[in-house]
Amino acid sequence: MIDAYGHVSLRSPRNPERYYLARSVAPELVQVDDLIQYDLASNPVDANGRESVLERFIHGEIYRARREVMCVVHNHSPSVVPFSVTGVPMRALFHMAAFIGEGLPNFEIREVRKGTDLLIRDSVLGKALAATLAAKPAALMRGHGAVVVGENLPRAVGRSVYLEQSARMQMQALMLAAPGGGSITFLDDAEVQASAARQDYYRAWPLWRAKALNRP
Amino acid sequence: MIDAYGHVSLRSPRNPERYYLARSVAPELVQVDDLIQYDLASNPVDANGRESVLERFIHGEIYRARREVMCVVHNHSPSVVPFSVTGVPMRALFHMAAFIGEGLPNFEIREVRKGTDLLIRDSVLGKALAATLAAKPAALMRGHGAVVVGENLPRAVGRSVYLEQSARMQMQALMLAAPGGGSITFLDDAEVQASAARQDYYRAWPLWRAKALNRP
Amino acid sequence: MIDAYGHVSLRSPRNPERYYLARSVAPELVQVDDLIQYDLASNPVDANGRESVLERFIHGEIYRARREVMCVVHNHSPSVVPFSVTGVPMRALFHMAAFIGEGLPNFEIREVRKGTDLLIRDSVLGKALAATLAAKPAALMRGHGAVVVGENLPRAVGRSVYLEQSARMQMQALMLAAPGGGSITFLDDAEVQASAARQDYYRAWPLWRAKALNRP
Amino acid sequence: MIDAYGHVSLRSPRNPERYYLARSVAPELVQVDDLIQYDLASNPVDANGRESVLERFIHGEIYRARREVMCVVHNHSPSVVPFSVTGVPMRALFHMAAFIGEGLPNFEIREVRKGTDLLIRDSVLGKALAATLAAKPAALMRGHGAVVVGENLPRAVGRSVYLEQSARMQMQALMLAAPGGGSITFLDDAEVQASAARQDYYRAWPLWRAKALNRP
Repeated sequence: MIDAYGHVSLRSPRNPERYYLARSVAPELVQVDDLIQYDLASNPVDANGRESVLERFIHGEIYRARREVMCVVHNHSPSVVPFSVTGVPMRALFHMAAFIGEGLPNFEIREVRKGTDLLIRDSVLGKALAATLAAKPAALMRGHGAVVVGENLPRAVGRSVYLEQSARMQMQALMLAAPGGGSITFLDDAEVQASAARQDYYRAWPLWRAKALNRP
Repeated sequence: MIDAYGHVSLRSPRNPERYYLARSVAPELVQVDDLIQYDLASNPVDANGRESVLERFIHGEIYRARREVMCVVHNHSPSVVPFSVTGVPMRALFHMAAFIGEGLPNFEIREVRKGTDLLIRDSVLGKALAATLAAKPAALMRGHGAVVVGENLPRAVGRSVYLEQSARMQMQALMLAAPGGGSITFLDDAEVQASAARQDYYRAWPLWRAKALNRP
Repeated sequence: MIDAYGHVSLRSPRNPERYYLARSVAPELVQVDDLIQYDLASNPVDANGRESVLERFIHGEIYRARREVMCVVHNHSPSVVPFSVTGVPMRALFHMAAFIGEGLPNFEIREVRKGTDLLIRDSVLGKALAATLAAKPAALMRGHGAVVVGENLPRAVGRSVYLEQSARMQMQALMLAAPGGGSITFLDDAEVQASAARQDYYRAWPLWRAKALNRP
Repeated sequence: MIDAYGHVSLRSPRNPERYYLARSVAPELVQVDDLIQYDLASNPVDANGRESVLERFIHGEIYRARREVMCVVHNHSPSVVPFSVTGVPMRALFHMAAFIGEGLPNFEIREVRKGTDLLIRDSVLGKALAATLAAKPAALMRGHGAVVVGENLPRAVGRSVYLEQSARMQMQALMLAAPGGGSITFLDDAEVQASAARQDYYRAWPLWRAKALNRP
């Protein structure tokens, strides 16, 4: 669910006022030497001439607002964008993406600034996005994609993987339910709480890691 | 149709009271040393510290209830989940998945226990799932996926592959038929019986096996 | 558009009363030694213990009925099956699949024999399918797939590739056109004739061949 | 979004009256020795017996009409064709394809010549296509595909990649919005201008290039 423009950051485990994000390069090509350290205002600490990602303010402002978040993923999840532009709310219908049941806000950049290229190019936009995200595990970004957070890397990545898959499933369920006038059984609140709390995506992690390290 | 969370088990050919299931690892990464033997209560016989799959009770309780079943597949088949949450019945329209015509029940875990994470974490839930499955070749699991069984490995795997494909075809057929007010020609009972009895998926097996052994 | 069950045959360039078809094995695994020669009644000439494809009568009866056909492809083209079960006619809307504009019949096996497994297991069914195909470049097979023919290998394969792609495009066009009450611009008869006559798929052939020879 | 029939050309950086286009071969198989130089009337300058692409007039006539264009891509983008045959206008709803908001014309070849195979086989058709394209970044071609231009290679390729992706997203958004009577939030004019001007797809280029050079 990450194209050449997605990015994944990690808060430093040693200093909560710092985070790591690769220089501006497609995720599939990132190497260890591409990692840059930033402070929470998203100023690079050790850039040494490497180009920073324009939208790093997504990461810095979320780390500032959410002390428990250790990982932030931004992507252009293709099945999520249609929800972001129609206002149809994403809902939890698949247990692997039960976290959707906590409610995913949709960030409308126009409410903060008009006439933008939709990118989070500064801390004003970053703070507004973090405010929209509030305490949720993810937020849609209208016409742009999504931001997904977690207490660790597997959780933020796993939520991103299954957010995309659940979006496809919900579109299909809406299509199936409509002709027959039927309804969709979403996870109820108790199921969301039971599932979202436990789901760590640890079982998938070694596989995803192996595939990610198998470079082009 | 198997993501990092599916699992496939085999009943022991030597002892019908035992089955084999890999430790908790993504199917693509399974090695011979990952196989654990279980009794039909799903207690590990030879775990030696290896972590068991939480949902092993799916397997044990089906082997207990269905003496002819030698293989059980559990998956999160993405095109099947939308059927499981809408109550639209899956029907046989593709000869490779004629077994659907025997009727696939949909397991609603809420009828057994409320507020779960939808996982089959104990033998009570496993027995309920096996009771829903009854004598059928597969059952949907609401908001979760499916369980598919067979008298041998190729048959359970082949049914899983074509269950997913048939689900996509049925969604497309419903979409095509709707605007023109048309109807869908499903396999009739005689066709289902003629096809389902003979279909062993043996022709596909060497190809699937070759691909599965080509690891990441 | 060929899964483990598709098959491709060639009429012998030396003897029009013979054709070649691989033994019963998934197409991706076929080797030269798998080729068996058949007469037009689909009796193997040189089987030497190798297992014949059950549905070889598709090939033999078409070669018997259509003297100009040198290649027959049978497949389970996934986007074509939904058309075969809904009676929605496939129409030409993409120039690479202009041959669809010649009109594709849909073979309903029930009109010949009831209660089958939908397979073309003998020459009676093969002759009926060939009669349905008549002089057309392809025919749908209800709940099963398609048969596609050509004066040479690239043409029959190219038509198969673009039949699948055009089916997807037509489903999408029907979906797009419906809400707005719009209509679809299909290729007209003159365009079909101009395009179908010239389209040999020769440009694609070296690429498809290179990919097909890159085995699992 | 390029199948065996797409083609990409570059205007010569040394002589604006010349462009380079590979001989008639699938793009995935192109080697340096396949490049042929053409004048703007699409006469080969150095063919040396190599077969020219029939539709080279697409390229020559656009370079003639649009002095700033340095790269032309022609493809059969599968999700774009359904728009081309239904008259549903493509609109900008994803920031990576904001250029769609400049308005994409749809070339109807019948208005120029009836009964064609839809190919741009001569300069009359090439000039008509260039006139339809006018000053826009791309044009649909009814029942055929699209032509996409740019001031450099990454921009024309990037627009092609995201045109396909945006077409899929728009089809899904239309499907989502319809049942609830909802509407779609497209990028507004100011957003289109802000985004389209800046979007150079440079970040993606090294990844696409690495993948393209990884031949079959």
